[in-house]
Amino acid sequence: MPAALETHRTQIEAILLAWGMAAANAAETAEILAWADLHGIDSHGMSMLTGYDSWRRQGKLNLACAPRIVRESPVSALVDGDAGLGHVPAAFAMRLAVAKAKQVGLAAVAVRNSAHFGACGYYSMLAVDAGLIGITTTTASGVRVAPTGGAEAKLGTDPWCFGAPGEAGRPFLLDMATTTVAFGRVRNKANEDLPAPPGWVLTPDGQPSTDPLDVVQRPGFLTSLGGTRENSSYKGYGLAMMVDILAGALSGVTFPSDPGHAKAEGGVNLGHFFLAMDPGLFRDPAEFRTDVARFCGQMRATTPADPATPVLVAGDPERATAARRRAEGIPVGPGLLAQIRTIAEASGAPWLLG
Amino acid sequence: MPAALETHRTQIEAILLAWGMAAANAAETAEILAWADLHGIDSHGMSMLTGYDSWRRQGKLNLACAPRIVRESPVSALVDGDAGLGHVPAAFAMRLAVAKAKQVGLAAVAVRNSAHFGACGYYSMLAVDAGLIGITTTTASGVRVAPTGGAEAKLGTDPWCFGAPGEAGRPFLLDMATTTVAFGRVRNKANEDLPAPPGWVLTPDGQPSTDPLDVVQRPGFLTSLGGTRENSSYKGYGLAMMVDILAGALSGVTFPSDPGHAKAEGGVNLGHFFLAMDPGLFRDPAEFRTDVARFCGQMRATTPADPATPVLVAGDPERATAARRRAEGIPVGPGLLAQIRTIAEASGAPWLLG
Repeated sequence: MPAALETHRTQIEAILLAWGMAAANAAETAEILAWADLHGIDSHGMSMLTGYDSWRRQGKLNLACAPRIVRESPVSALVDGDAGLGHVPAAFAMRLAVAKAKQVGLAAVAVRNSAHFGACGYYSMLAVDAGLIGITTTTASGVRVAPTGGAEAKLGTDPWCFGAPGEAGRPFLLDMATTTVAFGRVRNKANEDLPAPPGWVLTPDGQPSTDPLDVVQRPGFLTSLGGTRENSSYKGYGLAMMVDILAGALSGVTFPSDPGHAKAEGGVNLGHFFLAMDPGLFRDPAEFRTDVARFCGQMRATTPADPATPVLVAGDPERATAARRRAEGIPVGPGLLAQIRTIAEASGAPWLLG
Repeated sequence: MPAALETHRTQIEAILLAWGMAAANAAETAEILAWADLHGIDSHGMSMLTGYDSWRRQGKLNLACAPRIVRESPVSALVDGDAGLGHVPAAFAMRLAVAKAKQVGLAAVAVRNSAHFGACGYYSMLAVDAGLIGITTTTASGVRVAPTGGAEAKLGTDPWCFGAPGEAGRPFLLDMATTTVAFGRVRNKANEDLPAPPGWVLTPDGQPSTDPLDVVQRPGFLTSLGGTRENSSYKGYGLAMMVDILAGALSGVTFPSDPGHAKAEGGVNLGHFFLAMDPGLFRDPAEFRTDVARFCGQMRATTPADPATPVLVAGDPERATAARRRAEGIPVGPGLLAQIRTIAEASGAPWLLG
């Protein structure tokens, strides 16, 4: 039976505490991971604990991490993540950007020496909930994407997230990988013995393929958004480079294309970037929010191609899932549940899920 | 024979002067349009004069426009474009953002009451040439894009442009429509009696199509980047909404989805958004540029899928075209040449092209 959000969150927290994470950090990290599961972003919630456990066992996570500001101005900061998991440094950094933007209107914070931080959307929402536009992006540890025309992995899924306040409770929230699809969706096709749709996958030689095993079993590649050169995959590829320039080059961490990226001893060394901007710099913030709400409403009112499938706006599907899961609990598949139970037992954490 | 850049630019300037544009504005507008043609962005250079002429004849362009700051802070400004063509207000706005970013590190400028401004890349390059990261975006006058799952045009090609300084003379410069392809590429397929590749075009009912006439002759739609729902066109759709929120909602102009968008008397009322950011806020700017250059170099060094087609970085193709056209002149097809000649003659401008 799906566990209630609070139980789900507490289970994650218990495991992090058992790993030796400080109480406040464990609470915040669990909150952020559970937020992803609540919103249906299952790839970035509890399921991440298996990867985090692996990093932890390799000595690559400083569980006692305390982010610190190493450089600062009224509009900016560079934060060192202290080689911990990324959630605490990332939330610290976006809160700092929000506080500065509340003072001067616009601020950006880069984070170095960090690790995976869960779903980008959580951080952009910290800005949105403060009435601000929020941008969140991060380098990725996995390197599975070949640049357009290439036959070598040089990029990650390199996510981009933009949020803006609009109608109360229904902000615009775009949180996207710059690849056509995530690895998990290709794996699902392989599990079902189905072909991958054209545009998802490249062979190890960089040729278009519909065989999911080219990525799941062989060293092929995920495509950049667009899928093929003909369908402008160089745009998704360019967006991925933009992400790595903002999150990687500004913070001074390694790029996915660097030899040894995310493989150094003592830390994963990912970089993040956050921007917060007050619409009040330009006009009445209430009028701005009204306009964003009107714009979103115009999209939702579009005549649908299929009458059974209304047009949605970025953030709508995740909010619908969150409403359902708040009521019905958060489902975890049996495979993942068994893995998490093993991790909990190995670290001496209590087991709270069914 | 292709005219030299200077002749090409002077021809554009002569037409703008004949229309009654102030000398300084005509010089800058011609410079920006010729920059696009030089870089192979033919859709945004001289070819725009036909559309501009149509707006002018409808009384929708204030040829004596003078952009003015209507709201300002150390990190921001709102500029009114005075209902002129967008080039002068846009360059004014990005220069203002650059000047502010040189003072405080980070600045954003929104423009309202403007019109088409040519190619985004020109403005991002104003930031890049000053050692800054530059972001440029704008609302579009044409409405040809249905949101994912929709059968009604609600969005434009809504471009996004991001530039960052790297190797001297070879910055990263991504300038992309958020659609799979531009209208012109669909029209070219129709002209050649070729099908459109899957993912480019939707029928007027919002169904995937490979018939370019669905867009060229019938009221079908361009797709958002991704092409189909299965290939994540909601990402391109989300990026387009982001563009309209930044360029439209912050400046307070109409959205492409508003009834009467770009159809009001007295002006087109497009909005723009510019952001400039100093990498020196976060680290040594020279080290940042070295890292961006290294990152770009790693991409170019990727093993290509086709040995004859090396992997490129955003900005490379346009720079190669510019080098060739500086040497060989700027080609203009006979059809466009005839149109421009007609416009020149009708307005009493001298004819300088072959």
